[in-house]
Amino acid sequence: MQMTYKDSGVDIDAGNKSVQMIKDAVKSTYRPEVLGDLGGFGGLFALKKYENPVLVSGTDGVGTKLKIAFLLNKHDTIGQDAVAMCVNDILVQGAEPLFFLDYLAVGKLIPERVAEIVGGVARACKDSGCALIGGETAEMNGFYPEGEYDIAGFAAGVVEKNKLITSERVKIGDVLIGLPSTGLHSNGFSLVRKIVFEHKNFDGTEFIPELGKTIGEELLTPTKLYPKICLPLIQKFDEKIHGMVHITGGGFYDNIPRALPKNFGAEINADAWKTPEIFKLLQSWGNVARHEMYRTFNCGIGMILIVDKNSLPEISDHLNKNSVEFYEVGKVVEGAEIKIKGGDLLD
Amino acid sequence: MQMTYKDSGVDIDAGNKSVQMIKDAVKSTYRPEVLGDLGGFGGLFALKKYENPVLVSGTDGVGTKLKIAFLLNKHDTIGQDAVAMCVNDILVQGAEPLFFLDYLAVGKLIPERVAEIVGGVARACKDSGCALIGGETAEMNGFYPEGEYDIAGFAAGVVEKNKLITSERVKIGDVLIGLPSTGLHSNGFSLVRKIVFEHKNFDGTEFIPELGKTIGEELLTPTKLYPKICLPLIQKFDEKIHGMVHITGGGFYDNIPRALPKNFGAEINADAWKTPEIFKLLQSWGNVARHEMYRTFNCGIGMILIVDKNSLPEISDHLNKNSVEFYEVGKVVEGAEIKIKGGDLLD
Repeated sequence: MQMTYKDSGVDIDAGNKSVQMIKDAVKSTYRPEVLGDLGGFGGLFALKKYENPVLVSGTDGVGTKLKIAFLLNKHDTIGQDAVAMCVNDILVQGAEPLFFLDYLAVGKLIPERVAEIVGGVARACKDSGCALIGGETAEMNGFYPEGEYDIAGFAAGVVEKNKLITSERVKIGDVLIGLPSTGLHSNGFSLVRKIVFEHKNFDGTEFIPELGKTIGEELLTPTKLYPKICLPLIQKFDEKIHGMVHITGGGFYDNIPRALPKNFGAEINADAWKTPEIFKLLQSWGNVARHEMYRTFNCGIGMILIVDKNSLPEISDHLNKNSVEFYEVGKVVEGAEIKIKGGDLLD
Repeated sequence: MQMTYKDSGVDIDAGNKSVQMIKDAVKSTYRPEVLGDLGGFGGLFALKKYENPVLVSGTDGVGTKLKIAFLLNKHDTIGQDAVAMCVNDILVQGAEPLFFLDYLAVGKLIPERVAEIVGGVARACKDSGCALIGGETAEMNGFYPEGEYDIAGFAAGVVEKNKLITSERVKIGDVLIGLPSTGLHSNGFSLVRKIVFEHKNFDGTEFIPELGKTIGEELLTPTKLYPKICLPLIQKFDEKIHGMVHITGGGFYDNIPRALPKNFGAEINADAWKTPEIFKLLQSWGNVARHEMYRTFNCGIGMILIVDKNSLPEISDHLNKNSVEFYEVGKVVEGAEIKIKGGDLLD
């Protein structure tokens, strides 16, 4: 008996078919700086003129939110999660996302499935202004169950060195402006799954009146892409923006300090925004402590801008004019502590 | 009963511990261009002055070679595989690898295990001259079995636009110089596993006289890192190097054409090098067709330089002087076909 690579569960032809299927979606993300075409060994991006360019890059996955996509058999939104988790990370250092690459590992390569997933990646790249210039789709038989997969992303951006957002500009008294999240984004899903599918024993199809949708739909809501809102802000207000915080894994408690100088803290007034129902439900269903909620989830605020108090009026004005929803959620204080007062979560 | 994120299988403290454990290894890879420190949202890399910099980036994983690492419970080499698969890809476009990020998804976060894996990543980055400026370690409970994980890498490099290696310089009659692989590298492992563990029913500990080592040791041999050999060559011989080919997934048949203009092909003389025993064994054990072997594996040649015929003497001389093993493995011919003659594999 002759053995072939295909017999072993890796179908190069299916791989080629999926490349054909995603080609147009991928190309639709190209910016003028993209050189070459699909099929090169590396993705090529010609950098424009910068005085002192700093490349800012980040990688992230979607975590076990993927399990929700598997459960609902819906695969066209998870790509946005992968893109958002990465571009939101590089954005907070002041960088413009330039390009993105995705790593997709599948149990069995089903070209239509890959096209669905990568189509979502491409749409999110386009929305973020970054080109999808590379990727790897690995067929890993016996590693993932047939219909399952893992996805990770890699984003790179650029910023002039003197425009880099570090913690250096942050001052005591600076104001924290919170931008709403679209829900859970892509963090804390191991706990979410435990509460929803084990503890509550839901299967995902249950309609939840407080949410106005099924629990599955709520959980799969894609992570918000902040570049389109934040890049113009960074460009317009420049050094008036002292810092930015992506509320990602580790929630408020672990992420806000990453944007602050040592021995600086923040006071958050959680009454400033309405905590989305999903967080209240999760807390109540799982009897999760308030501190644990803010250490695990974004609780409604996915991005924070730290701005000069004196610039608040003009920044607010700009946000209002552009119909961007925002809340004044707190201020920078002395002492390396994050204090969260008020809000809709229970003590 | 109160539920916590930790109860759900994600241990933020174990995550923090692993960051502490890998800190020194990661920092040992830093180049002067690296700004900031671990813990920022994005990795920062200040680009030096270039006239027209082209960023070249690639992502890849290790595929089911990981299963061998699990089987042998040896995790300090797989990081090199992840780095090599990426940096070898960007190298063939003429780019100097600048930085690398890793994505590591684990079933359970065991800090010592993570340190072993990322330690391997860091050593390989250092060997390739690129800085490990970011990474994500995701604890994905219920996604991977407790001791298992997936790893992917992202590498970015830079090259002056006029030094970019594309297929444009390649001419009929150009010579193909092959650089030896260290073995299977990280491709074709689904077939390898099927032959070795299913068909031969090995458990990995069998000593194979032809290899002088156990089959497990042979299979886990890390992928060769080519930057240290190839970058000085690219810098010294510049446009005398017309093309480069990373023999990665798809073997000779799929990769050589990626470096050639349309309607150009190559004639390979496989008698030019001694096919390593592992490929002969796999072919014989699995009764794999010769064409399938060259479409799946590197068969002993991991990297090919396509050089001007007239430059061959000086390039050979340079390689000899630097004790770099190489073989004249073929030439560029008219017609879009890859013909492989001779060699130690059976028809």
